[in-house]
Amino acid sequence: MAEIEKLAHSEAHYFQSYNHHGIHEEMLKDDVRTLSYKNAIVNNSHLFKDKVVLDVGCGTGILSMFAVKAGAKHVIGVDMSTIIEKAREIVAVNGMSDKITLLQGKMEEVVLPVDKVDIIISEWMGYFLLYESMLDTVLLARDKYLVPGGLIFPDKAHIYVAGIEDGEYKDEKIGFWDNVYGFDYSPMKKIALAEPLVDTVDMKAVVTKPCRTFSIDLYTITKEELSFSTPFEIEAERQDLIHAFISWFDIEFTACHKPVYFSTGPHAKYTHWKQTVFYITDYLTVSPGEKIQGRITSKPTEKNPRDLDVTIEYAFKPEDSTRAKAETLRYTMC
Amino acid sequence: MAEIEKLAHSEAHYFQSYNHHGIHEEMLKDDVRTLSYKNAIVNNSHLFKDKVVLDVGCGTGILSMFAVKAGAKHVIGVDMSTIIEKAREIVAVNGMSDKITLLQGKMEEVVLPVDKVDIIISEWMGYFLLYESMLDTVLLARDKYLVPGGLIFPDKAHIYVAGIEDGEYKDEKIGFWDNVYGFDYSPMKKIALAEPLVDTVDMKAVVTKPCRTFSIDLYTITKEELSFSTPFEIEAERQDLIHAFISWFDIEFTACHKPVYFSTGPHAKYTHWKQTVFYITDYLTVSPGEKIQGRITSKPTEKNPRDLDVTIEYAFKPEDSTRAKAETLRYTMC
Repeated sequence: MAEIEKLAHSEAHYFQSYNHHGIHEEMLKDDVRTLSYKNAIVNNSHLFKDKVVLDVGCGTGILSMFAVKAGAKHVIGVDMSTIIEKAREIVAVNGMSDKITLLQGKMEEVVLPVDKVDIIISEWMGYFLLYESMLDTVLLARDKYLVPGGLIFPDKAHIYVAGIEDGEYKDEKIGFWDNVYGFDYSPMKKIALAEPLVDTVDMKAVVTKPCRTFSIDLYTITKEELSFSTPFEIEAERQDLIHAFISWFDIEFTACHKPVYFSTGPHAKYTHWKQTVFYITDYLTVSPGEKIQGRITSKPTEKNPRDLDVTIEYAFKPEDSTRAKAETLRYTMC
Repeated sequence: MAEIEKLAHSEAHYFQSYNHHGIHEEMLKDDVRTLSYKNAIVNNSHLFKDKVVLDVGCGTGILSMFAVKAGAKHVIGVDMSTIIEKAREIVAVNGMSDKITLLQGKMEEVVLPVDKVDIIISEWMGYFLLYESMLDTVLLARDKYLVPGGLIFPDKAHIYVAGIEDGEYKDEKIGFWDNVYGFDYSPMKKIALAEPLVDTVDMKAVVTKPCRTFSIDLYTITKEELSFSTPFEIEAERQDLIHAFISWFDIEFTACHKPVYFSTGPHAKYTHWKQTVFYITDYLTVSPGEKIQGRITSKPTEKNPRDLDVTIEYAFKPEDSTRAKAETLRYTMC
């Protein structure tokens, strides 16, 4: 977050930093997110009954309270943010102070009142799943505190890729910089192209089948494996242009009696994660059945482990070689 | 901005900090804002011809380039942000590097290549006019660098207050916290009430006449006078409820041959400043012609001079005293 300290003058007065509780409001109001956790926890009291639960990045304490409702013996919520002071008040007005211990600090540094926990619950997902995500903290908690055979909620995540037609919006977001009140703003265009866009994509814009490119099993993955480089192949379903690749993720709670699952894809109900759009330099002209081979690589930036360098390489080699194209695109989420 | 460093875990991965160029994109695309400056500058070359101009908080350099187009001899742009590196590239591709000097740093610290300037241009306005505004920096530049008789663009700003009916949205924003997935979130409700909301207000929601409560003359006002406490009186225009006071500001460039003016009020075209909404604890029941007397007080917080403590006192004393109400409301924009 060091970059923020540099924001000043023209940026500072604009920056919507003041509405801090608004962050929690939007997350709570995302009911795909919050109801999935509620269903996974509250409807599975056979798993939570008398268990010790750790809530990593507990925020306002909603998941901790779900766990108490599900019969947990005790819940420990950990968060670095001052929001934990509000979480304490909320837990108190809901009469759960004796069931929930809230600790402010880094997972690496806080002293838990127990040696081990039976279940870890966490809503750690960021945009593009891994941007500013807390997954590394969840893995640290898993390795340090989870009993053998303990459960993690959620325990699986999958990243998908597809191609979209997005001419109009691309022109508004990228083409805009060609002529700004009569001036050439091409230096901003370069930045705009290198910054993936987090936005809602209409299902009608999706031109290809989706491809699952990377999967995470929270029981086994290591922090190092969160830097990934995986291939994808997407097949056009209609005659159209492709202006961008998009990515989204799905989340699974497989330990539940009736598995709980949600998707943040363009075919699914809106979530605050929306989708992530990676514009290509120009566009591709595709016909049904034609395939694009690609590879997506993501790793933390050197400056900040929660920022990401994302590279997308792709090759499109239709029989009509006049439409062939291949390039390597570099993006930064910082 | 120190508060931001505390954001962590549940907040950090959510914080939309990465799209930095998006700040400039939204400001540039706000064409009420940008075209007002363009008209005020480019259409007044008789004022800018051969003049030395200082652009306070120059951002991407758009105002500096307008000044060059208007015939300025030289323009000095100052900004603390790293965006100034992009501004340099933009100025270069537009062939204006010899006309515009861009300096990164605080106005208090940068060394200007001239002793005095003829004109100061600046887009310094924040939400509620003064939240995270750069006006103090503009006044510092005025006192240090502006020649006697020099011009300031813009030179006048006015803050207005009105009352609105906002039952539905208030319930969504404030009432939401009464029952969050079955839990009592009243501690968040307290914060939500104390944080003014920056949002677009439909003109149809406005129940009272507006009242101009505070005016700024940039030639004469002092930094100390930006802490203000001014009375207002608003008169109901119809039978309705009032759930909130709103505030907005107008901006004037009076030095122009044809004066340039824009408003950020609910009656005017959308701007990125929107309006600022201050919810009252309950609501008022008003009839046409009835008046609400009030006082609005705004001063920088002790922690951060760009944050604001805003107090609204009001008294509503209709003939039907069962509807009378008076309270003092304290808000913080931080």
